[in-house]
Amino acid sequence: MSRLLIKADNLITMDNDNMIINGGEIAVEGNRIIHVGPQGSSPADFKPEKVVGGDNMLAMPGFVNCHTHASMTLLRSYADDLPLMKWLQEKIWPFEDNMTAEDNYWGAMLCCLEMIKSGTTAFADMYMHMERAAEAVKKTGMRASLSRGLIGIAPHGAQALEENRDFVREYNGAAGGRINCMFGPHAPYTCPPEYIKQVIEYAGELGTGIHIHLAETQTEYKDIYDEYGKTSIQLMDSIGLFELPVIAAHCVHLDDADIKILADKKAGIAHCPESNMKLASGIAPVKKIMESGAVVGLGTDGASSNNNLDMLEELHCATLLQKVDTKDPTALPACEVLTSATKKGAEVLGLQQEIGMLKPGYKADLILINMNKPHLRPLHNPMAHIAYAASSSDIDTTIVDGQVLMENRRVLTIDEDEVYGKIDECTSRLLSEAAK
Amino acid sequence: MSRLLIKADNLITMDNDNMIINGGEIAVEGNRIIHVGPQGSSPADFKPEKVVGGDNMLAMPGFVNCHTHASMTLLRSYADDLPLMKWLQEKIWPFEDNMTAEDNYWGAMLCCLEMIKSGTTAFADMYMHMERAAEAVKKTGMRASLSRGLIGIAPHGAQALEENRDFVREYNGAAGGRINCMFGPHAPYTCPPEYIKQVIEYAGELGTGIHIHLAETQTEYKDIYDEYGKTSIQLMDSIGLFELPVIAAHCVHLDDADIKILADKKAGIAHCPESNMKLASGIAPVKKIMESGAVVGLGTDGASSNNNLDMLEELHCATLLQKVDTKDPTALPACEVLTSATKKGAEVLGLQQEIGMLKPGYKADLILINMNKPHLRPLHNPMAHIAYAASSSDIDTTIVDGQVLMENRRVLTIDEDEVYGKIDECTSRLLSEAAK
Repeated sequence: MSRLLIKADNLITMDNDNMIINGGEIAVEGNRIIHVGPQGSSPADFKPEKVVGGDNMLAMPGFVNCHTHASMTLLRSYADDLPLMKWLQEKIWPFEDNMTAEDNYWGAMLCCLEMIKSGTTAFADMYMHMERAAEAVKKTGMRASLSRGLIGIAPHGAQALEENRDFVREYNGAAGGRINCMFGPHAPYTCPPEYIKQVIEYAGELGTGIHIHLAETQTEYKDIYDEYGKTSIQLMDSIGLFELPVIAAHCVHLDDADIKILADKKAGIAHCPESNMKLASGIAPVKKIMESGAVVGLGTDGASSNNNLDMLEELHCATLLQKVDTKDPTALPACEVLTSATKKGAEVLGLQQEIGMLKPGYKADLILINMNKPHLRPLHNPMAHIAYAASSSDIDTTIVDGQVLMENRRVLTIDEDEVYGKIDECTSRLLSEAAK
Repeated sequence: MSRLLIKADNLITMDNDNMIINGGEIAVEGNRIIHVGPQGSSPADFKPEKVVGGDNMLAMPGFVNCHTHASMTLLRSYADDLPLMKWLQEKIWPFEDNMTAEDNYWGAMLCCLEMIKSGTTAFADMYMHMERAAEAVKKTGMRASLSRGLIGIAPHGAQALEENRDFVREYNGAAGGRINCMFGPHAPYTCPPEYIKQVIEYAGELGTGIHIHLAETQTEYKDIYDEYGKTSIQLMDSIGLFELPVIAAHCVHLDDADIKILADKKAGIAHCPESNMKLASGIAPVKKIMESGAVVGLGTDGASSNNNLDMLEELHCATLLQKVDTKDPTALPACEVLTSATKKGAEVLGLQQEIGMLKPGYKADLILINMNKPHLRPLHNPMAHIAYAASSSDIDTTIVDGQVLMENRRVLTIDEDEVYGKIDECTSRLLSEAAK
């Protein structure tokens, strides 16, 4: 088994018993952390094959991006500053209609490249051609929870569900356990209750969870209420969705009863502030949701509504937006938003026993941040620096499952130039097809 | 005179007649742009001594940071997640009380270093010991509008005003015109009308402008109204403030009459969304202000309420926040927020004839952004990439007044390690004094 020693001036473990360590180290054997402590404290018989980190480095758990659409990197800055339906109907959907399995592979490769370079070590994805996304995850070394996006009202809705079932059977637990698979019914307004009941049945049979958009817009809130006399959350609860593990993306428009359901059922909430802002969906009542005890992680959403997959930007926005929205500068303080981006994110993905903390027994999914940057000096408070000042390019090293995916900002598992070349090829073909 | 040729795959000129150039170049002689056009179009007799830029680069005007407190970099992440008055009274003011001229110099040096590395080429500052900030601006090659912060109700308010006058006399136009000086009365609630009238008189005599915080918080709005029967903006208007060039920082809490005054009098507004969010001050009605024709630039505010001086983050937040606040995804579109961060920012500083566009006759204050990054691929729309996806570390080259201050991310006018060492010295002394 490989042995890796990680040294850092500062450790933020996200482990409440041992949150901050000044001058620390982490010993990794195979894919697991076996020791976390002050420098020099690793077991005497631990002989690392490789040492990473050192002066000016801060180590912390990698970010968990709880909601994205990986291959939508191909649509980054393709359509912006438009009303929602015009954006979808005239730009996004026609472009997506022509996307092949190969396009999805390279879009997912670009997503993984961007995530590794910005400190994300695990993500939850929902899109098309997921077997190709799984191949990208395998190759790049990332950890992911993958769901095929399902539109129940589409002509091929039933077929897509069967494909999702096949996908779960084939890929759940793949890549040495780095890949988990879920079902991906898009939303209550595109998947009628009967369809989602079928999804729930399949997911139950296969012992997996469901990734779904819920309560994203005011229009959804109103339309679902008008049709069913219930909110999206209450409708989903009434058909048993929350008896399974759920990643509920967005959760912007909630009433108190909705929040209670989400908290009681321990649903995983993927809060996506930048997407909600950019699409003008609204501001999720995150402070209130967190106070209810619900599990809130952070997500970037797809690159077409963000337009990057930068979790540091996402967590800055998350805390700043809650402060101004609640008129309370103490809302969502640094430690809480970092918890949301790591430990709680792991819980949203159902991986709270595996990742999200620097702690013996946990998988070695972690990052080193180079604090020797003008915007990170002086170093009064490392946690506040990450919450309010750090930038994705400060990530020096990214490690997933004990494997170093990036060191000194060089990504070791991906040929960057090859990805850029393929992306340009895919994009120019898709643009010419969209223009027809 | 030095001759510099800048090449880029994409130019965003911010000049409405010629906004985007694919495959362009900029010829610079001394400190001024003499030509902007397609590659190879510079005058035949222009023989550059140096060529910068090239493949994958995007050139645009440097960012203008319209409101900061440079030396507050020393307080970055020193106090966060606190109620406003506790933050000021228990943390910020006691720390500042011990800050010497030397501390201010090194704080300003760190500010300039951070700004150069994040693509800011000009900034408006208000703080103490401004002669030392001016020295930092001289040394680093930045452009700045500097104002001594004045608290009219403080015991030394009158003396500070005299110092501000001396400072303007000594430094206005210094560093080959890169330094402009203004007066810096802090705010209507710390500077009574009689005091500000004196400031106006001095500024008028010296032919300069005034940098002031206005309408930042709901508390200010209410307190000023209760005391004077007028809003802050109307009070200032009634004593003639807006007859001079003004940088009005924040402008969050405005009524329609306030907006009309700011627009009619062409006051420069420094919109600081991240600070307003972090301190929970409120959301400025920027879309409405802009529709009134008022001049709106962007500012980061000081590093203690942000916690970086990153204009790309600021402009991302500015547009996202307006979209969600107005429930309109078309609000503050990419081009508009870039204009605010460059051309309009120049106007806020009174430099609209000098900087803010890539245009012959303008000063050569510009940046090159390296677009060969995963989060900037594919390149559907360069302007949307800057508005929504780019990160400060993508800035490759920063040029001010025709001088290359950073090339390939190496800052040429500052010894980074020296700055970090001095910052650590100043900080540890200040912390031990604050603990007494």
